[in-house]
Amino acid sequence: EKPIFDKIERILDEISSGGARRRPKIPKGTRDFSPEQMEVREKAFSIIKNVFQRHGAVQIDTPVFECRETLLGKYGEEGGKLIYDLADQGGEALCLRYDLTVPFARYVAMNKIQTIKRYHISKVYRRDQPNITKGRYREFYQCDLDIAGASSIPMLPDAEVIKVACEILNQLPIGSFEIKLNHRGLLDAMLEIAGVPSHKFKVICSSIDKLDKESWDTVRHEMIVDKGLSESVADQVGDMVLRAGEPQDLLAELQSSASFCSTHQGARKSLDELSQLFTFLNDMGVLKQTHFDLSLARGLDYYTGVIYEAVLTDPSVAVGSIAAGGRYDNLVGMFSTSGENIPCVGVSIGIERIFAIMEEEAKKKGGYKTTPVNVLVASAGTEAHLTSHRVQICSELWDAGISAKTFYHASPKMDKQLKQALSEEIPFMVIVGESEVEAGTVNVKNLDEKTEEVVSRKELPEYLRKCTCALS
Amino acid sequence: EKPIFDKIERILDEISSGGARRRPKIPKGTRDFSPEQMEVREKAFSIIKNVFQRHGAVQIDTPVFECRETLLGKYGEEGGKLIYDLADQGGEALCLRYDLTVPFARYVAMNKIQTIKRYHISKVYRRDQPNITKGRYREFYQCDLDIAGASSIPMLPDAEVIKVACEILNQLPIGSFEIKLNHRGLLDAMLEIAGVPSHKFKVICSSIDKLDKESWDTVRHEMIVDKGLSESVADQVGDMVLRAGEPQDLLAELQSSASFCSTHQGARKSLDELSQLFTFLNDMGVLKQTHFDLSLARGLDYYTGVIYEAVLTDPSVAVGSIAAGGRYDNLVGMFSTSGENIPCVGVSIGIERIFAIMEEEAKKKGGYKTTPVNVLVASAGTEAHLTSHRVQICSELWDAGISAKTFYHASPKMDKQLKQALSEEIPFMVIVGESEVEAGTVNVKNLDEKTEEVVSRKELPEYLRKCTCALS
Repeated sequence: EKPIFDKIERILDEISSGGARRRPKIPKGTRDFSPEQMEVREKAFSIIKNVFQRHGAVQIDTPVFECRETLLGKYGEEGGKLIYDLADQGGEALCLRYDLTVPFARYVAMNKIQTIKRYHISKVYRRDQPNITKGRYREFYQCDLDIAGASSIPMLPDAEVIKVACEILNQLPIGSFEIKLNHRGLLDAMLEIAGVPSHKFKVICSSIDKLDKESWDTVRHEMIVDKGLSESVADQVGDMVLRAGEPQDLLAELQSSASFCSTHQGARKSLDELSQLFTFLNDMGVLKQTHFDLSLARGLDYYTGVIYEAVLTDPSVAVGSIAAGGRYDNLVGMFSTSGENIPCVGVSIGIERIFAIMEEEAKKKGGYKTTPVNVLVASAGTEAHLTSHRVQICSELWDAGISAKTFYHASPKMDKQLKQALSEEIPFMVIVGESEVEAGTVNVKNLDEKTEEVVSRKELPEYLRKCTCALS
Repeated sequence: EKPIFDKIERILDEISSGGARRRPKIPKGTRDFSPEQMEVREKAFSIIKNVFQRHGAVQIDTPVFECRETLLGKYGEEGGKLIYDLADQGGEALCLRYDLTVPFARYVAMNKIQTIKRYHISKVYRRDQPNITKGRYREFYQCDLDIAGASSIPMLPDAEVIKVACEILNQLPIGSFEIKLNHRGLLDAMLEIAGVPSHKFKVICSSIDKLDKESWDTVRHEMIVDKGLSESVADQVGDMVLRAGEPQDLLAELQSSASFCSTHQGARKSLDELSQLFTFLNDMGVLKQTHFDLSLARGLDYYTGVIYEAVLTDPSVAVGSIAAGGRYDNLVGMFSTSGENIPCVGVSIGIERIFAIMEEEAKKKGGYKTTPVNVLVASAGTEAHLTSHRVQICSELWDAGISAKTFYHASPKMDKQLKQALSEEIPFMVIVGESEVEAGTVNVKNLDEKTEEVVSRKELPEYLRKCTCALS
């Protein structure tokens, strides 16, 4: 029956795969979400959206791909290599978005927006080495809140986005966490004081960025052998960045006259900003969840001020950071025709790692269930026209806004119908048989309360609406 | 301050663009969603999800790209040309998904699912000529419901997905519409009866598919000149496919002994199926919204049975079809290692065109508003420590689940704060000044009811929780 050209293609396909039919595949580093996994995801998103909206954020969306020139040169050497390009099929050079921050900056500049607090929950793409157990995928969700626009109270927006991250992470069932904090200005100051040439700041930063996974010796070796620092300069960098502690304590130490910061203007400015930030974080009750860590560098090029990263404190859960962000005051200006900068600060929740933890928890508890319909419309008897009655009743319920289903099989056995209702936890069964058709009624069983009632067909939607409203 | 390499890149970029800064661009045929447009979108999705869930459908998600071999040969000649390929950067050959149906079939086969009713709301990608006023984009949403699995009551799932489409389209504010219906088996039978060679069925179908936009003369010319039919065969095709009418009337005509269908087994089988479908559509109260149209062909290759397409009946709104679907019984089998087929039927809502209509409506009514926060925390006075009090109060409200915001400016004027609350329609203002700080209280203004009350700081979250609950 089918045109022969189709067959040829199929046969060639089979030959090329060695005669056997190939197994269907999903691209490396990606995943499907099953209905049960979607329940976990929707639950997490609902918590996150709630927090975002509570802070007065509005939602936007941007395309999954951007013009290549939009993404070019925004992510640093390491990040740039991981961008997915679309094939040249004529037209513009396009890439899949690498994060939601650069598209946001492009959106702000393109629409000449002066101030906005926006959230965006969408997938981003990185050609990274996937590690599924750690929740590292090539396609993954980011949940971002960013605040664009000048603030005459410095560091208040910065504190608010960290507060947002804490509110979300405190609500998600992921165990305890801490927010590691640092400042790009302080990092630059330390490198300058140590004698690192300014054109090497970025590459040395990306070495420092590895200190959460690698030992100091390994990173020191990389700085000297690969990045060309002298031993003494590398050691001076190490002396400074390998400090971490309680925010107020470490800040006081760095602000003292004996500190290496005391004579460096950029360092002092950064410390003033951190001091203001810590005050607001304390006002917001989240300073106790933060940790000041001079080795925190963050890989991305566009940060200009405070940077942060949330990590789980349980050492048995090795999932890396679950939220991160910082201030980026020059990114919008790169897209603006006038070159005008709009200062921005934001946070991104790395929800994939959180999904993995929540799914694991759900499995332990016997798994998430999808929500069942409220009514199973069943028939008692083998008369052919009962199918039409089932369909009519279902349809009347749908039209009344009540969720319902019926068997796609003719004359199903009552036992089978009851078993399905119970196994799917459907609370109500509506049964129609020959005598009910004649009387213009149905039999409604409440399976939770094990009660039943005869209801007229006409009143059924209203009757069930009341019953199902009482459920929720 | 910035490393020189960055500057070099920027300067080269400027030189290559003729010295001027380039305007930020968004890829051709794509769009951003502003906060107001997101309100429209979320409203439409909420209506659609509600209907899907009412029918007991569960949600899944799949990656935005698929292996090229998954999409290859599934969409016919025209569709195949519109697929976005990813660049070869090493690893698998990948494409952006063209629809949600083929990924669904891949999902069903890969997970060896025998029966599922699922919905999926996501973006798909086509390198088509964009037409923004008609709502035709290169990145656009589809909202799909599909039913996979055998049914011993033929055509009941087919009727249900059409019912789903009607429920959704009746609820969306898009004006009146009708569902055009046909059957692929009937179309094949007509082509066979007319004497079209079987290897030309697909190409002739795609000519017939153009009859909603082109005249018969144009399509006839294409069939003869481009597709190589003889004039008499083309005219016979035209005699048959150019019929449309009320479903039961046209069906009766085709089922009569005088009809060209009477001696063709495939045609008679298709008519039996349509007869059963019309019965169920009548039971569901939606037969009156359908139109039986023998020229409806649908471009995609994978359909095997009933096909349909919803169009707006208002001739002034030229947006083409807004929902479409059909039966595809052989698609899952193409992905199954055993070759086992799972019969499927589904519908896809083309929501982009519906967004365009809804946004137009919203503009006429003064536009959609984004939801404001419930509380603006304001200060009265210029004392520096009032900022910390504003921040603390905001934070306590956030922790209590109440949406709140405060000015990012030090010592804002009361008039300015009040103006913002009123213009954003924020219902409550909490005011803290020097005397309130001393008394441990705040002044709460209800801006709708023009009342105010002094509330203790401790009781404020609970007080406002009650007030804001009363609002919703």
